[in-house]
Amino acid sequence: MSKNLSPEEIEKSLSELTGWSVKDQKLVKTYEKKDFADAVSFIVRLGFVCEKHDHHPELSNVWNKVTLEITTHDAGNQLTEKDFALAKGIDEVA
Amino acid sequence: MSKNLSPEEIEKSLSELTGWSVKDQKLVKTYEKKDFADAVSFIVRLGFVCEKHDHHPELSNVWNKVTLEITTHDAGNQLTEKDFALAKGIDEVA
Amino acid sequence: MSKNLSPEEIEKSLSELTGWSVKDQKLVKTYEKKDFADAVSFIVRLGFVCEKHDHHPELSNVWNKVTLEITTHDAGNQLTEKDFALAKGIDEVA
Amino acid sequence: MSKNLSPEEIEKSLSELTGWSVKDQKLVKTYEKKDFADAVSFIVRLGFVCEKHDHHPELSNVWNKVTLEITTHDAGNQLTEKDFALAKGIDEVA
Repeated sequence: MSKNLSPEEIEKSLSELTGWSVKDQKLVKTYEKKDFADAVSFIVRLGFVCEKHDHHPELSNVWNKVTLEITTHDAGNQLTEKDFALAKGIDEVA
Repeated sequence: MSKNLSPEEIEKSLSELTGWSVKDQKLVKTYEKKDFADAVSFIVRLGFVCEKHDHHPELSNVWNKVTLEITTHDAGNQLTEKDFALAKGIDEVA
Repeated sequence: MSKNLSPEEIEKSLSELTGWSVKDQKLVKTYEKKDFADAVSFIVRLGFVCEKHDHHPELSNVWNKVTLEITTHDAGNQLTEKDFALAKGIDEVA
Repeated sequence: MSKNLSPEEIEKSLSELTGWSVKDQKLVKTYEKKDFADAVSFIVRLGFVCEKHDHHPELSNVWNKVTLEITTHDAGNQLTEKDFALAKGIDEVA
């Protein structure tokens, strides 16, 4: 599951997602919610997804924005299938 | 703000909401979410609304269902404008 | 895991918990938090425990109080080890 | 309320808090919780404080850590009493 993806595999996996980009070997997306309360509720909802996947992003929040950066630390901070699975799972509840 | 509403006023206010009913002088509605995690996130979101209104429902949750019962305790458990304002505020974030 | 517990097993398991009682074949406890915001945060925290156990209580909240009723529906609403494991898990984060 | 604080006032206010430092005209603190679920629950709890103060930090989370950076944007990103009041309020629920 934690095998590093090749550039081609990353390209392909990325094309199946919406709004995500790769930066410094991390999957990155910023969600814009209606307000702060919506952003916090979304953090809770995606938190459940993270626990289910046993995989956790770097998360930042400013008012209504929630930015996620996903990488696989124990794969030397490279992108793996786990990262794309988490991104997909979070998109499903966003 | 905490004046008891007359039966006619309750009738009128109720007609402006969707899915709420009056039972034992309480405004009652059950929201059905996709799953438990969605229900908990909704509880957080409506919690912000409650704090903003400084008015809090009796809340119950079973798996994906969240039931709210709203009344004004310090008005002798009668329905007031505060109750309908909270119901409306929660509907807006549901 | 979902085997019904005998009255003796229930008695023994209950003696290992604090603040829980058995009522109508349900494990019941009311937590009293400092205020509403603390209660909602606790609901989030215990929600993670429920998802981890894949077992969910009937939950109710009034202001700073959170009441949980735990039973095993697919065991004919009888108490099982799953119920006591969840109760213990929630106590650990309360 | 949004008056910029002098260096002396900042020094004094900072001395009344624990674990906060000033960096680039921002109040900064990292809380370390037991695990990810505790961190998310804390984000919810402090979220209520932010809404009450109508003032919101830059927040980041990695697993069990929650870092807050507080400044007053509409005061030209300078520190004001609002920032210290929020920091104090969050410490009270941490």
